[in-house]
Amino acid sequence: MESGTAVVVGVGSETGLGAALARRFASEGLRVILAGRTAKSLKSVAAAITDAGGAALAKVTDASREKDVIALFDKAAADGDLRLVAYNVGNNATTPLLQTEAAVFESVWRQNALGGFLVGREAVRRMLPRGEGTILFTGATASLRARPPFTAFASAKAALRAVAQGLAREFGPQGLHVAHVVIDGVIEGDYARSNFPDFVRAKGEDGLLKVDAIADSFWALHRQPKSAWTHELDLRPFKEPF
Amino acid sequence: MESGTAVVVGVGSETGLGAALARRFASEGLRVILAGRTAKSLKSVAAAITDAGGAALAKVTDASREKDVIALFDKAAADGDLRLVAYNVGNNATTPLLQTEAAVFESVWRQNALGGFLVGREAVRRMLPRGEGTILFTGATASLRARPPFTAFASAKAALRAVAQGLAREFGPQGLHVAHVVIDGVIEGDYARSNFPDFVRAKGEDGLLKVDAIADSFWALHRQPKSAWTHELDLRPFKEPF
Amino acid sequence: MESGTAVVVGVGSETGLGAALARRFASEGLRVILAGRTAKSLKSVAAAITDAGGAALAKVTDASREKDVIALFDKAAADGDLRLVAYNVGNNATTPLLQTEAAVFESVWRQNALGGFLVGREAVRRMLPRGEGTILFTGATASLRARPPFTAFASAKAALRAVAQGLAREFGPQGLHVAHVVIDGVIEGDYARSNFPDFVRAKGEDGLLKVDAIADSFWALHRQPKSAWTHELDLRPFKEPF
Amino acid sequence: MESGTAVVVGVGSETGLGAALARRFASEGLRVILAGRTAKSLKSVAAAITDAGGAALAKVTDASREKDVIALFDKAAADGDLRLVAYNVGNNATTPLLQTEAAVFESVWRQNALGGFLVGREAVRRMLPRGEGTILFTGATASLRARPPFTAFASAKAALRAVAQGLAREFGPQGLHVAHVVIDGVIEGDYARSNFPDFVRAKGEDGLLKVDAIADSFWALHRQPKSAWTHELDLRPFKEPF
Repeated sequence: MESGTAVVVGVGSETGLGAALARRFASEGLRVILAGRTAKSLKSVAAAITDAGGAALAKVTDASREKDVIALFDKAAADGDLRLVAYNVGNNATTPLLQTEAAVFESVWRQNALGGFLVGREAVRRMLPRGEGTILFTGATASLRARPPFTAFASAKAALRAVAQGLAREFGPQGLHVAHVVIDGVIEGDYARSNFPDFVRAKGEDGLLKVDAIADSFWALHRQPKSAWTHELDLRPFKEPF
Repeated sequence: MESGTAVVVGVGSETGLGAALARRFASEGLRVILAGRTAKSLKSVAAAITDAGGAALAKVTDASREKDVIALFDKAAADGDLRLVAYNVGNNATTPLLQTEAAVFESVWRQNALGGFLVGREAVRRMLPRGEGTILFTGATASLRARPPFTAFASAKAALRAVAQGLAREFGPQGLHVAHVVIDGVIEGDYARSNFPDFVRAKGEDGLLKVDAIADSFWALHRQPKSAWTHELDLRPFKEPF
Repeated sequence: MESGTAVVVGVGSETGLGAALARRFASEGLRVILAGRTAKSLKSVAAAITDAGGAALAKVTDASREKDVIALFDKAAADGDLRLVAYNVGNNATTPLLQTEAAVFESVWRQNALGGFLVGREAVRRMLPRGEGTILFTGATASLRARPPFTAFASAKAALRAVAQGLAREFGPQGLHVAHVVIDGVIEGDYARSNFPDFVRAKGEDGLLKVDAIADSFWALHRQPKSAWTHELDLRPFKEPF
Repeated sequence: MESGTAVVVGVGSETGLGAALARRFASEGLRVILAGRTAKSLKSVAAAITDAGGAALAKVTDASREKDVIALFDKAAADGDLRLVAYNVGNNATTPLLQTEAAVFESVWRQNALGGFLVGREAVRRMLPRGEGTILFTGATASLRARPPFTAFASAKAALRAVAQGLAREFGPQGLHVAHVVIDGVIEGDYARSNFPDFVRAKGEDGLLKVDAIADSFWALHRQPKSAWTHELDLRPFKEPF
C-alpha cells in the first residue's frame, strides 16, 4: 500500500473516469482529493470511497481558475506528500465551426488546456522538492487529430498534450513522471448510455472503454520504475477502428 | 496576374515574414490588406508596397478580438473577392514553466491560437460562397513538439495546428485550401540580428530562413491546383538539424 | 532553363507519374534518364519527350539490383552534372496478411525500399562532390499508416520514408536536398481507369490526383533555395478524406 | 497464474531483454519457448528458468527464415495454447550510409522486419482460432525517426512498426492484442557495459533501461482487458532526453 495524497481533477458522475481513478487510487492506500465543479457529485463519489474504507475528500474546484487550483494543491500538500495527480477534464464541444463563437472556443480551451497547465504547474511545485511524483493527463483521439465537428475540442486537447509533453521534458530528469494517455473510443457509463443508447448497444460487450480498465493503466503508469517510464500511450476497445 | 484581395495577419517589421508575404502577394496582382497591432509598422510596409506599384492597405487589428477580426474581413470582402489569407502571428514566450503565470499562458494562446481560429472562421465565411480560396497558417517547430522553455508557446502552436487541420478537413471538400507551414529555424531579419547576433553570425550564409524564400513556398501552396493540394509542409535552412 | 541531367526511376505507362515527372524535368531543360523495368514503356515515353524537343534516354533498370543502379548512375553522371533524381517506384500488394508469403513481402520491400536506398546512395555519391542536387522520393498514404490489406506495402513504404529522412539529415548540411512526398489518393491515369472505373467516375472532376499537378510540386521542391527547404509534404485531391 | 505457452523471439545474453521477458513470462506460469540464433545462449537462459521452477524450452531459430518460424510455432502450439509472443530482435548497424552495401541494408531488414512479419503471421495463425492472444514487438527510437548513422536500422524498424500496426488493425477486432513498444534509450546489461562503459558510468543510477522494468510493461500490456488496449507506448529512463 502507498501512503500520501493523490488529486483527481475532473470528477463528475460515479460511472465516469474521474470517479474510477479516485476509487482506484484510494484502494491502493492513497488519500484522494476529488476536484470538480459540482459539489454533489464530488460528495457522492467521496462518500462511496469512504464507505469502502478509503480516504477521500471533496473539493469544489474550477480548474481553469488559478486561485482555485492553488488552493486545491495547498490543501493536498497539507494532507500529506503529494504522490499522484490525474487531470481528467474533458469538456467536449461539437458545434459546427462556422457557428462556434469565440466564447465557446475559449471555454473549451479553458477547461481542457488552461486547467491542465495550472494543475500541472501546481503539482510540479509541490512534487519537485521531494524529486518524485506522477502527473497523468487524460487525452483523447482528438489530441492527435482534428476532425470536424470537433475542431475546437481538438485544438484544446492538442494544447493540453503539448503541456504534458513540455512538463515531461522539463521535469522528468528531476524525478517527476508526466504522462499523457490517449483515450480513443467511448467510455462506458451513464453519459454514453443516455446520450447515444443505440451506439452503445451496437458496440456490444467490450466495445466501449471500461473505466476500471483505464484506471488499471493509469495505476500501472504510476508504478513504473524510473528506469523505464512511458510518456504516452493509447487506450481503446479491441474493436475500435484506428 | 491574379485579381482580388489577400489578407496577411501578423505584419510587423519590414524584415519580417508578414511583410514579405504581403509584398509577394501584392507583386502577383492581389490587393493586400495588412493586419497587425502597430499602425506605424503596417503603414511603413504598405507604403513600400504602394511605391513598388502594388495595392496595399493597413488595418490595425488585434487578431485575438472577435470584433476586430470581423471588421478586418468585412473590409477585405468589400474590396474584392477574397482569394488568399495568411495567419502569421507568432508571439513566443520563454519564461520557465514554474514562473509562467496563467495570464501569460493565456496571452500566448490568444495571439497564436484564438486569433488563428477567428481569422480562419471569418475567412471561410467569406470564401465559402464562391467555393474557393486559400488560407495559410504559419506554424513553428513547436507546433509538433513541446520543449522547455517553450511549453506555453508549443501549447498555443499545437492548438493552432489543430485549427488548421480541422478547417482543412471540414472545408477542403467545399473548395477551400487550408494549409499549415511548419517554420523550423530562425528567420533572418532585424529581430534575430538584434536579439542573438552571435548565433546569426555562426549560422553563416543560408543558415537562417530567408523570408522571400518562405514567401515563395506560401505562394506555391496558393497556386496548387485542386487535384493535388498540400496540407502541411516544413521549411528549414539546409543546415538546420531536425 | 536548367542544364545537367535528371534521373527518374519508376517510369511505366505514359499516363503515370514517372512519365509526367520526366516530361516536366525535360521541359525545364534537363537531360532526363528514364529508368524502369519495361523497355517498351521507357522508349515510348522517351520518344514523346524527344519529339517535344526535350532530351531523354531510356535505361532498363531493376532498381532493386545494386549493379543495375550503379550502372544507371554511372550513365547519368557521364551525361552531365546530376541535378535531380526522383524515385517513383510504387509496387503495391494487397493480399490479405495471412496469405502473404515471405517472398511477396520481400518483393514489395525490394521494389519500394531497397531500390530507394540504392538509388539514394548512388545519387548522393554523384552529387556530394559538387555539394548540390535534389533527391525526391514518392511516398504514399501507407508511408505513414499501415492498414489492411496494405500491411506489406505500408511496411515497405515506411522503410522508404526512413531512408529519405536519414539521407536528408545526413546530407542536407552538405548541400543535398532530399524530400519525401506523401501521395494521398488515387492517381488519374490508365491504371485507375482500367482497374476501378466506377471509383474514378464517382470521384468526379479533380477528385483524383493529376500527374502534372504532382509534377509541379516536385519541381517546386527542386527549385527551393537552400535557406528554406521542405523535407516532407503531402499531396491529395481536394475532396480526399484524410 | 496463467497457463499455456509463450514464445520469445530474440533471446541472447542473460542480461538482455529477451531473457528478461522469458523469465517474467515463465514466472507468471507460462511455458516459454526461447528462440534465437545461438544455442548456447538459449540453453543457458532456459536452464536458469527451469532452475527457478519455470518451464522453458530452447529452440534455435533464424527468425528471417520462413521454415524456421513455422517450425517454431508448430512446436509452440503443440505444447499448449499460444497466449503471448514477443518479437525482440534488434540487430543494429551503424555503418555510414555511403559505405552501407546492399547486403548489409538487406540483412538489417531481414532480422528486424521480415522476421517480425513472419513471427506475427505465424502467431496470428495459431491464435486466431481461439480469438485471443497477445503479440508484442520491440521497437526503438529509430522506429519513429531516422538519424545517421542509423538509417538502415531506422528503415528496418519503421518497416517493423508498420507490420505491428497493420496486424493490430487487421486482427484486433478478432480478439488479438498486437502492440509495439518503443524502447528509447540504452538497455543496462553486458552489451552496454562492454561496448561503451564510460557512457554507462556517466548515465548513473536509473539512467539506463532495466530489463526487468521493461518486462513489467510488456506483461502489463498482455494483461490489459479487451475494453482498454494499448497499441503503442514508449519506455525510456527518466533522464533520457526525447
